[in-house]
Amino acid sequence: MSGASGHYEKRLSDLDGLYLDDAAHKALLSEKGDVVVYEVGDFRPSAVAGDMIFGLTRMVPGLVGEEFFLTRGHIHANADRPEVYYGQKGHGLMQLESPEGETRIVEIAPQTVCYVPPFWIHRSVNTGSEELVMMFAYPADSGQDYGIIERSGGMRHRVMRNGQNGWRLVDNAAYKPRARAVVDALMRAAA
Amino acid sequence: MSGASGHYEKRLSDLDGLYLDDAAHKALLSEKGDVVVYEVGDFRPSAVAGDMIFGLTRMVPGLVGEEFFLTRGHIHANADRPEVYYGQKGHGLMQLESPEGETRIVEIAPQTVCYVPPFWIHRSVNTGSEELVMMFAYPADSGQDYGIIERSGGMRHRVMRNGQNGWRLVDNAAYKPRARAVVDALMRAAA
Repeated sequence: MSGASGHYEKRLSDLDGLYLDDAAHKALLSEKGDVVVYEVGDFRPSAVAGDMIFGLTRMVPGLVGEEFFLTRGHIHANADRPEVYYGQKGHGLMQLESPEGETRIVEIAPQTVCYVPPFWIHRSVNTGSEELVMMFAYPADSGQDYGIIERSGGMRHRVMRNGQNGWRLVDNAAYKPRARAVVDALMRAAA
Repeated sequence: MSGASGHYEKRLSDLDGLYLDDAAHKALLSEKGDVVVYEVGDFRPSAVAGDMIFGLTRMVPGLVGEEFFLTRGHIHANADRPEVYYGQKGHGLMQLESPEGETRIVEIAPQTVCYVPPFWIHRSVNTGSEELVMMFAYPADSGQDYGIIERSGGMRHRVMRNGQNGWRLVDNAAYKPRARAVVDALMRAAA
């Protein structure tokens, strides 16, 4: 079989600026060192439209202040491309945000299938006490656009600890809704 | 979330003609009745190119003569579309055949990922003693062509029991290789 295998990891320092509590992020860095927060391994048979990329993502459990460890999050560069996640180990959630700013949460446990519809920004969050492991698959010509989250000052909500074993959504005060024209351009790009 | 959920099942009588030993097939039917051999549940968000369909397939264990229970098998109607399978339970294999007639076998156990490359005919076989359960995902505009196997008199090889716990490939005497023009047409259709 031809194709390429890829692997990348994100460390605590790579996630600077994503968390509400900057001081807690700095304190964790100096306490734990620049540890790996999550890693992704994938297989890319080709980049041809109609082919698929698939792989495994692993994220350690942890908190920055009261906010759970999370991935940077992205929308697909070809925004109308979906993604399928499949829980393997641990407990977490997929935080989904439409371009218009609607939030949906899919809780993920082993054998939970999570379908990320076309046009939805997505980020995974480890709300559990062990590693969160998921398999994923998406169309080979999807691409990733991480900037869409940065340009809005983050996602609309933050996922914070709620008591001992729970989570809650908190408004992200820095969030700037996307202008109608930006949303329209995203939708049009796919047509 | 919009979209459609689908479900179908194949019974022993639906698999008439697929097995080497017709008498054993008939005997099994009269002994067991027309039991369900495998069932497929899927979710089809849309049929749009670039979207994805995903679901779960379950196949009971069993033998027809010395030949393991299997699915009908297909090539994608848009032949350049791939598929990803992911083993959940049981032990089996994916029997892959290129249009030119090359056979490849991928053994499947829990947490085995099996990538079916574009243009490969594929069929799953339950070589184990329990239910074989796999998750799958493929591009929404793939489609299925079951006729390609019939037109060749079956797949090139049969998967037969080998001793207590093993399997072996046996040439299918009825197999007629595809003409060069047929192979070329399949490849061209995707271009």
